[in-house]
Amino acid sequence: MIYGERMHEGLELKTIDRDRPFGYHCCMKNKDKNKLQMILHAVLSLTSTNDLVNLSISKIAAAAGISKSTVYVYFKDKEELLSKTYMYVKDLMDEGIAEVEAKHPDLDERIGAFIRHFVQRYQRYPKEAKFMEAVQTNPSVVSEEAHQYAETTAAPIYRAFEEIVGNPEFVQAPAYVYATFFSLPMKMAEINGTMTDSELDSIICMVLNAMKRR
Amino acid sequence: MIYGERMHEGLELKTIDRDRPFGYHCCMKNKDKNKLQMILHAVLSLTSTNDLVNLSISKIAAAAGISKSTVYVYFKDKEELLSKTYMYVKDLMDEGIAEVEAKHPDLDERIGAFIRHFVQRYQRYPKEAKFMEAVQTNPSVVSEEAHQYAETTAAPIYRAFEEIVGNPEFVQAPAYVYATFFSLPMKMAEINGTMTDSELDSIICMVLNAMKRR
Repeated sequence: MIYGERMHEGLELKTIDRDRPFGYHCCMKNKDKNKLQMILHAVLSLTSTNDLVNLSISKIAAAAGISKSTVYVYFKDKEELLSKTYMYVKDLMDEGIAEVEAKHPDLDERIGAFIRHFVQRYQRYPKEAKFMEAVQTNPSVVSEEAHQYAETTAAPIYRAFEEIVGNPEFVQAPAYVYATFFSLPMKMAEINGTMTDSELDSIICMVLNAMKRR
Repeated sequence: MIYGERMHEGLELKTIDRDRPFGYHCCMKNKDKNKLQMILHAVLSLTSTNDLVNLSISKIAAAAGISKSTVYVYFKDKEELLSKTYMYVKDLMDEGIAEVEAKHPDLDERIGAFIRHFVQRYQRYPKEAKFMEAVQTNPSVVSEEAHQYAETTAAPIYRAFEEIVGNPEFVQAPAYVYATFFSLPMKMAEINGTMTDSELDSIICMVLNAMKRR
């Protein structure tokens, strides 16, 4: 449970369970688990129409159908709530990328496999993907700890970018340029919800052609 | 004033003046011009922290420091207000692209020149660019007429995409794939506010490498 480690520390949780969002104590009551789930659903659905900066505990409580004071039982403020949500979402998105890294020593193949991984996750968890992007657009809404956690879960991606920057087969460009090209297929999958595997293969090929020297 | 044409019809305006936002009658009082400008500024600054779907005439009026009823003097509803703002912004962004098209018969060079044009506009008008993207993410907030107007101002871009799709030197891909690669440098200019000309040249080269067959 490598990706859950920091979350474990942060939330003092015993387990991370994908079907029951956020992590929680193994001895937590079902009532509490349900409330956390209601809060998570509220945050994710509010993100599709609200800017995170304007999101408030009041709005979240109203959307979850619980009182504001109940939200404060679980989270001390909006930053903590969004930070925990972000860590939960990053776990969901990045889970399995260490295995992808181990399976593909070849850099080109690995980039392709990472892109396929994220396109699948974005398609399976569109609200979570949108929330993640919203946080990354407004980084100040979550804690420094949450950002560090996100860097940990995404470590195999950062390692690939480092490898690209040092590889003479690739165009010389700053890391953010590679990162933007890398994120493009996920963007396209958002636009085209029914992207086929062969369309995705062509797009991956285009991304690699952009990154590699002629 | 080709790009102002539809705006002219829609707003019944005599002139479009870049320094005094929106268009207005030549006989319009200064008081009215100022109010329109205040409304425009309010919409653009609210867009950076508000979702367009949740934006209301009340919020716009409050941010502009005028009464709701004053806003209704100029715009019959939120859709009309956002539609006119969108048409104004599209004029600002697309102004000059017909000249770029005429100057570059070579398709590769033309794509590069379009990208340079838009990167400059995005850097010069970041709030307007953000508003434009917000409308394109939530197309239902503006009228069909506004979308048709936007297609008219961007006609040279659509023509370039058609040329790409029919050109055997380019990878076979649907138009939205090309459009997403094309928009990438503007995205990067948003991330990196101090992008140099030579960095932009490299990025344009990467975009063309992605689009063209090896």
